[in-house]
Order: sequence, then C-alpha cells, then structure tokens
Amino acid sequence: MSNNKELSLAEREVLESEIKKLGDEIRLLKAEKADPTIVKEKVAKMLERKALLGDGGKVKFTLKTPKGTRDYNPQAMTIREKVLNLVTNVFKTHGGETIDTPVFELKEILMGKYGDEGGKLVFDLADQGGELCSLRYDLTVPFARYLAQNKITNIKRYQIAKVYRRDQPYMTKGRYREFYQCDFDIAGQYDSMIPESECIKIIDDVLAKLDIGSYEIRINHRLLLEGIFEICGAPSSEFKNVCSSIDKLDKQPWDEVKEELVKVKFINEDVVNKLEKYVRLREQNPSLSRLELLEWFENDEVASKNEKIKTAIDEMKLMFEYSECFGVSDSAVFEPSLARGLDYYTGLIYEAIIFESSYFVKSEECDEEESNARIGSVAAGGRYDELVGMFLQSASNDKKIKNNVPCVGVSFGIERLFTLMEMKYKSTGAPMRTNETEVFVATAQKGLLKERMNLCKELWGSDIKAEMVYKKNPKLLTQLQYCEEKAIPYALIVGQREIEEGVVKIRNVVSREETDVKLDDLTKKLKELLLKC
Amino acid sequence: MSNNKELSLAEREVLESEIKKLGDEIRLLKAEKADPTIVKEKVAKMLERKALLGDGGKVKFTLKTPKGTRDYNPQAMTIREKVLNLVTNVFKTHGGETIDTPVFELKEILMGKYGDEGGKLVFDLADQGGELCSLRYDLTVPFARYLAQNKITNIKRYQIAKVYRRDQPYMTKGRYREFYQCDFDIAGQYDSMIPESECIKIIDDVLAKLDIGSYEIRINHRLLLEGIFEICGAPSSEFKNVCSSIDKLDKQPWDEVKEELVKVKFINEDVVNKLEKYVRLREQNPSLSRLELLEWFENDEVASKNEKIKTAIDEMKLMFEYSECFGVSDSAVFEPSLARGLDYYTGLIYEAIIFESSYFVKSEECDEEESNARIGSVAAGGRYDELVGMFLQSASNDKKIKNNVPCVGVSFGIERLFTLMEMKYKSTGAPMRTNETEVFVATAQKGLLKERMNLCKELWGSDIKAEMVYKKNPKLLTQLQYCEEKAIPYALIVGQREIEEGVVKIRNVVSREETDVKLDDLTKKLKELLLKC
Repeated sequence: MSNNKELSLAEREVLESEIKKLGDEIRLLKAEKADPTIVKEKVAKMLERKALLGDGGKVKFTLKTPKGTRDYNPQAMTIREKVLNLVTNVFKTHGGETIDTPVFELKEILMGKYGDEGGKLVFDLADQGGELCSLRYDLTVPFARYLAQNKITNIKRYQIAKVYRRDQPYMTKGRYREFYQCDFDIAGQYDSMIPESECIKIIDDVLAKLDIGSYEIRINHRLLLEGIFEICGAPSSEFKNVCSSIDKLDKQPWDEVKEELVKVKFINEDVVNKLEKYVRLREQNPSLSRLELLEWFENDEVASKNEKIKTAIDEMKLMFEYSECFGVSDSAVFEPSLARGLDYYTGLIYEAIIFESSYFVKSEECDEEESNARIGSVAAGGRYDELVGMFLQSASNDKKIKNNVPCVGVSFGIERLFTLMEMKYKSTGAPMRTNETEVFVATAQKGLLKERMNLCKELWGSDIKAEMVYKKNPKLLTQLQYCEEKAIPYALIVGQREIEEGVVKIRNVVSREETDVKLDDLTKKLKELLLKC
Repeated sequence: MSNNKELSLAEREVLESEIKKLGDEIRLLKAEKADPTIVKEKVAKMLERKALLGDGGKVKFTLKTPKGTRDYNPQAMTIREKVLNLVTNVFKTHGGETIDTPVFELKEILMGKYGDEGGKLVFDLADQGGELCSLRYDLTVPFARYLAQNKITNIKRYQIAKVYRRDQPYMTKGRYREFYQCDFDIAGQYDSMIPESECIKIIDDVLAKLDIGSYEIRINHRLLLEGIFEICGAPSSEFKNVCSSIDKLDKQPWDEVKEELVKVKFINEDVVNKLEKYVRLREQNPSLSRLELLEWFENDEVASKNEKIKTAIDEMKLMFEYSECFGVSDSAVFEPSLARGLDYYTGLIYEAIIFESSYFVKSEECDEEESNARIGSVAAGGRYDELVGMFLQSASNDKKIKNNVPCVGVSFGIERLFTLMEMKYKSTGAPMRTNETEVFVATAQKGLLKERMNLCKELWGSDIKAEMVYKKNPKLLTQLQYCEEKAIPYALIVGQREIEEGVVKIRNVVSREETDVKLDDLTKKLKELLLKC
C-alpha cells in the first residue's frame, strides 16, 4: 500500500470515519483500563488507516460546476437581466403581483404530481435527520401549495425562479438541470375563457417584444383529446400513455408514432388508425384556418356527437374570439395533436415554439431540419382546476371539504430565450456594458490617491456611479484602457495644476474631448452630460 | 392490523418498495414455471403489504414549508424588492458587475472551508447516482471556485442569492435555513487597504440609506489577534478555539467568557488573564477614539514589539485614513475583541451591527437588553487572500503553482434588514402597493366585455399597466373596491352612452373625480395623468 495512491472522496470519507471510530474505541478502552494488547491492536489498525489517508489529506478534484449546471459570467448576466426585465415588465403590465417560495419543498408535496417520468427526475435532499425534502421541479405545484396553505382563492401572481430536474442535460439545446422558469398564473372562479385569453395574450406579447424569430402558440384542450379517445374506442386507462406518443408528432412522422403505439404500447391497430384522422387534422389540412379546423369537428358526424368534444370546441371558439379582442396575433393556432403536461391540466392547454430564427445555432454536424428542431418549446401552460383541491383534501381529515381554486397559467422556459438573445447580441457586434459606471476618476500623476478618493466620495454622494483604480500611482494609459473596455462614458483626470486652480478635467472617453470644470460645478455638469448619454 | 392506521412517508416508501420487489419476483417465478406453492406464498406476502398500505394510498400531511424556510407573500416581496434594489444600486454605484452560480456545488468544493461547526450545517443532496453535491453555504466559496476555474485575477463583482444552512432556525430573530446574502467582493493585486476602505464605505452607504437605526461597523485584524496570542503565550493550535469564545464578548460578560476558556477549553488561567487587557481594551476605555485605541497598542511596551501587531496597527491606521477620504462616518470603530469568521480570513475583518432602532420587535417576554440583542450582525466581511489559491492548488497536480488571487469583500445578511424594513413600513401606516397597475378598466353595465377587452388591448399596446375583472357582467362596486384595495390610481368606466359618443370616462380613484375623454385621445391623456402620480 502506497501513501501516494489518490483516493476518491468516498474512499476518504470511509477511512476518516473508521479512524474516528477507532479513536473513540481506544479512548474508551484506555479509560476502562483494558488489556494493553487489545489497545495496541486497535492503535495499529488506526495507524494503518491513517497511512492510507496519505499526506495531510489534500483532495484532488476538477474545478467545475455540477453536471447540467453552469455559471453566468457578467456578460451572460447582462443578457439574462434584459430578458428577465422584459418578461417581468409584461407580467406587471397585466397586473401581476409576485411571491417567492423556498427552493425546496417537503417531499410529500411534490410526490405524485408529475407522473411517472417526472417523478424520477426530482432532486432529493439527503436525509440528514428531520423532514424529507426535494428541490422544486416547477413553480406550479409550490404555487398550489401556497394557495391551499394560505387559503387564498383569488390572485394574479407571477414568480421568476430556478427549478431543478435530474434530466439528461443537453447544454447546446438549452436543457439544464438548473434553469429559470417565469410563471404567470390566474387563480379564481371566473367566467369561461377570459383568463385563458389573457395568458395567450401574455405569451404573444413576450415573444413579440423579445423579437428573436417567428413563433407559433399551439392550443388544444384536454377534453378534445379525451373525446377523441372515446369515439375511437381507446382504453381510457391508456390516455396519458397514448398522449405522450401523440405529442411527439411535431418532431416525428406519423409512421414512427404509430409504430410506437402499436408495437411498444400495444394499442389496437384499428384504434390507432381511427385516432390518426383527428390528431393529424391540421398537418393534413395546412390551408385551413384555426376557425375552419374547429368547425371541421362540428361538422364531423361522429365527433360532433361527443359531449366532451363539443365542450372543448365551444370553449376554444370563445377563446379565439376573446383573443382577437385582446389583439393576439395569428400566431395562435389550434393544434389537435398537442397533448403535453396532462398530469394536472384539466382544460385548455398551450405551448409556444420558435420555429424560425436567424439566430439559430448552426453547427456543421446538423442539417437545417435538426437545427430548427433545436429551439423547440419556449413557453407552455394550461388550466389546472384540481391541483389546489388535491392539497386542500390531503391536508384535511374532513372528507367533506370540497373547496377548490380553479387556476390557469403559463410558464416561460427562459434558458432557450437566453440562448437566442445571446446570439442576437453577438450578431449586432455592439459592445456590452457589464457594469453601469458613469465616471472613472483617473490621474496622470503620482501621489494623488487621496484627491481621487475625495472625488469619488463627491460623485457617490450625488448618486453618480463612479470608480477609481486601487493603486497609489497608476498609469494613465491603463486607466483609460479600462474606461474603453468597460464603455464608461466619462473620465475625470486629476492633476496637480488642476488642483491648484480648483478645477478638474472631464474627458469624453469616446470622442477624447477634454474640458476643465470648476470643482464646485462638477457634479451638476456631470449630471447634465450623463442625461445626454 | 388495521387499514386505517396512518403511515409515515418513510413507512409507505418501505412498503411500496417491498410490494414492487415481490411483484417482480412473482413475475419471474411464473415465467420460470416455478412451484405454485412458492408463488402463492409470495402473493400472500404481497397482499398483506398492500392491505397495510390502506385505501388508495392517500397520504395525509400538513401543508407547510420545510423547517426554517418561509414563503414571501406579495406584501413581503414588495419590501424585499425595495431592500434588494437599494443594495444593488449601491453595488452598481461602486462599479460592481454581477455573476450567478448554481444553487448547489460539488460537495468537494465546500468541504473544509467552514471549520468544524460550519461543516456540520451544510445541506447535502441525496446520492441519486452521479456526483455528490451540497447546497451552497455562502457566496464566497462559490465565488473563489468561479475565479479559480475561469482563471480570473481581477474583478469587482456582486452577487445576490439565497444560501442554505442547517442551523437551528430562530424566525423572530431573522435566522432562517434559507436566506439571502448580498455580497460585494474585490479580487485582484492592489495597493494596501484601498479595496478594504471601499468595502467599509459600501457598508456605511447601505446602512445609512436603509435608515433603520443606528449602527456600528466594528473592525479588527487577524494579525492583531495572532500577535496578541503570541505575546500572551497562548498556544497557536488553540487560536480558532479561543477566538470563538472571545468573539462572544459583545453578548456575554468577561467572567463567562473567561470561565469557558479556562474550564471548558482548558486554557491556562494566566494566559487568559493576559489576554483580557488587550481584548477588553475598547470596552474598558469607552472614551478613547479609534485612533487613540490604535495608538495605545503602539505605546504598549510588549505589544509594540510584536511584528504581527505592528503590521495590523499600521494597516488599520491607513484604512481609517482612507475611509475618511471616502467620507465613511464615525460609525466605523476599532474593536480588538472582534474575532469571527477566521476560517478563511487572512487580514482585516469587520462586522456591522444595528444596536438601536425604533423598529425593534419588543415582545412582553423580553427586556430591553434582550430586544436589543435581537438584531445583531447585518453585514460582515474581510480579506481572504488564500481561498482562491486553495482551489488552484487542489485542482492541479503541479505543486509549483503558486498563483493566487487576493480578495476582500462584504456580505449583507439581508433577512434581518427585511425584518426591520417591514416594521418600518408598518409603522408608517401607508398603504402598500403589491402590483403596479395604473388603470383599471371597469364597467357599470352588462354585456360590455369585448369593449373592455379592446380598451385593455389599447392600454397594453401603449405600455400602460392595466387590468379588468374576468367576469362578463361584473358589479361596479366590486370593481371600484378592488381599485381602492390595490391603490390603483385611475379607473376607466365604460358605458353604452359613452361608446355611442366615442368617449370614455376616466375616474380618479382617490378624489373620485370623473372626466370624459375622446377615445382617440385616451392613451395620451392617461400618460399625462400618470406622469403626475
């Protein structure tokens, strides 16, 4: 056994705990005045393990963030803040108030809310004694818990926060294990389709304002899918299972989806053939408008007789009518194959995708089609009328409690939007400011540190953002280079002559123009100049 | 065994996994055409466990957030945003750029950075396969990891994010397991004490601007403490151990601290008596200024000969000189008993406390002294010159690498500031706006839903923040009550007569004054009115 063997963290932990245990045993044996040979044996064992630990116990490791996560440097943060400010502003324009919830929840709260697939992706905290907790998987379930816990029946809230999924990461596609969600939800008992229309309007506003490519807001209804299931004779027990295949129709051809349904999920082929007509309706009739597609269902002899389908079509027609009043663009479409997130959604469902953008990542290994598929969904949501009720019932022993809080909302998956915004910024070639410094206090001479400090004090006191270099005798060139690099608009140049004359030199960093200003007028003059920036 | 017994989550999990295992075994036995009696036995075992699981497996639980965490409702968020905006603005005024790091780090990164006590408080993620991770304990260690990983040697960065500690929570004191830290750090090789002085200036600016009570910024130096140790003949191996007792002098009398040192930590009583003179210097000489206290060390025959003490006193004198140039108030004091956070600090250390505030929680159970102690430290920091180097060395096999990145910073513990700001707001009695809605679109008549929707569209399109109620035929009173409750300044009242005349009524919610405006002039007129708000 060598001292130089590199140990893994887990191996070290085992050794360290063994050493600690042996130490405790030895102390106990000594206190009990036990047989010295037994003590010696234990001591030898302990020393053997200590030798294995090696020199001073330095752990070697790679410097990195955990799998599927990343740091944001100041450039990335600048873009992230722009995107988040834009989204927040739209949420505020629609009257949203905001809340925050802890990054982890009791494990019980999250269990059974995300289906079999989602459940596997929840990050758990270690059991260190006390409650079992998990990192939040989305913001919707914590929001429902918040409503139930505080008995809130009415709120229009937004929340912008990170969520966690133990998914296989795919960084170039913007799929991370830690990512932001920006959620807007409307809770309360309201008239049909009015809150839904505002959610659609919010998606349309955010994507239009971001201006990163053409998009489509695909809309469907859970009851339409359930009705189609009924008229095709599909077993309702297989509903979620079948829907998860159908939802792939935007990425896979029908043949592949059909094969999966028949050969992997063992759905009767006749049933699958019947389903095809309905779920491929839009794909096979690209010239029909959203209203014509809805009317197709009303005119179909079989579909028009199903109560669920009737309700779904009526609600969607009403929603498109309202959306038009709200000025939603034609990007909102009816897509009968949209079948995602059905674990808690109960009514209208929707998803926004960006399907054409000049800012796509185009690598040499992938063709046009693949690079288009890279963007995918950037927002999704729907109506979930029963989630809050699940908490109200679980928390109470009184089975009579049937209070419920109907909800509808939308969640923006902001990482993909960041990726596109990053490319958009890069394409403009404009310099990116990562701080907001307005004035840099510089000097060309030695020994003027305190004079620069005094000037900074004056500027900070007038709420002017200012910096100086932390050196006693800095070089002027280095200071001016820093101004250019950070795109700071003005520099003050402090010199002995100026101090004696009671003036200071203001330099416009871009034009390099310099003017002397009296010390007494300095902050006033600077504020005038900065207003023009 | 009864079906009605309530099971804990852990008990359920054991049962569920046993049932799954038995099911797998039974399927395998059947496939292998095993002896039917064996299969029957297994089936019986499985049914027994299923019976234990009870009816449908509904879990009963309390609706709450995990221990030591809390939700922020819209009122709390409004205050939180005000505090964070103020702090962010000070950081930006001093030229800071911002970064973000993941909420969890590799466990290896955090290990050995927080001393024995801190290490025990780290939240670990469960081992679900893959890397071992822990929630971040502060923002300093992730920042040092970020610098080392990206080989950054110069940056002035701020980061505002949540950190996690498995401490015993004490909500009324503002001690949570999930809480915000607002950090500002300066990394780079600079001239002595200039960056330190800016950190002190930032603390002074933030606390002055928050205006929540009188405060003190207590300053000390690690080398001063080490020097005092040397001249008192205290064993250097006990340095951190002794310092953690001495640091309690702001809350405990000397007699208690002495008892702990002598009787619990077994420090020689003569040594402890020698230490007393130095660490209680300020306490016993309340009339001496910070400079006079520093000079006392220069005049002390024993202390003045110690090299470490000399360096520490020189640096602190320089720092106070610079702080004065930066306009730092007299709240910055020299406190030789300050001895906290010595695990990675290498030079100047400081801590800000609020010691008098009219917004204290004064409950009946605690006297004046206790209620004062409730606030405690709201900011702390210091110089840490070796932390980045620890990562650079650990990550490399080349022992020659000695690159280092000296750092100094400050961290605001914002929860206590929230608590004080909340009380400050409550004491003003002013209504708190939790959303930013500027105009509410109301109606007194039935059947005007689409007209209201159209008006909202117009307002949103002109970037006016607007809301309407999601009802087809709402009551005017309810709508106006909502406006008053949310302090929305203006309401539009839509009516049949007005529509026919092409006008709309603007109502000032506070004064109840109403004026008709032509539809074409509406947004222009509203913007004028809103500018005056």
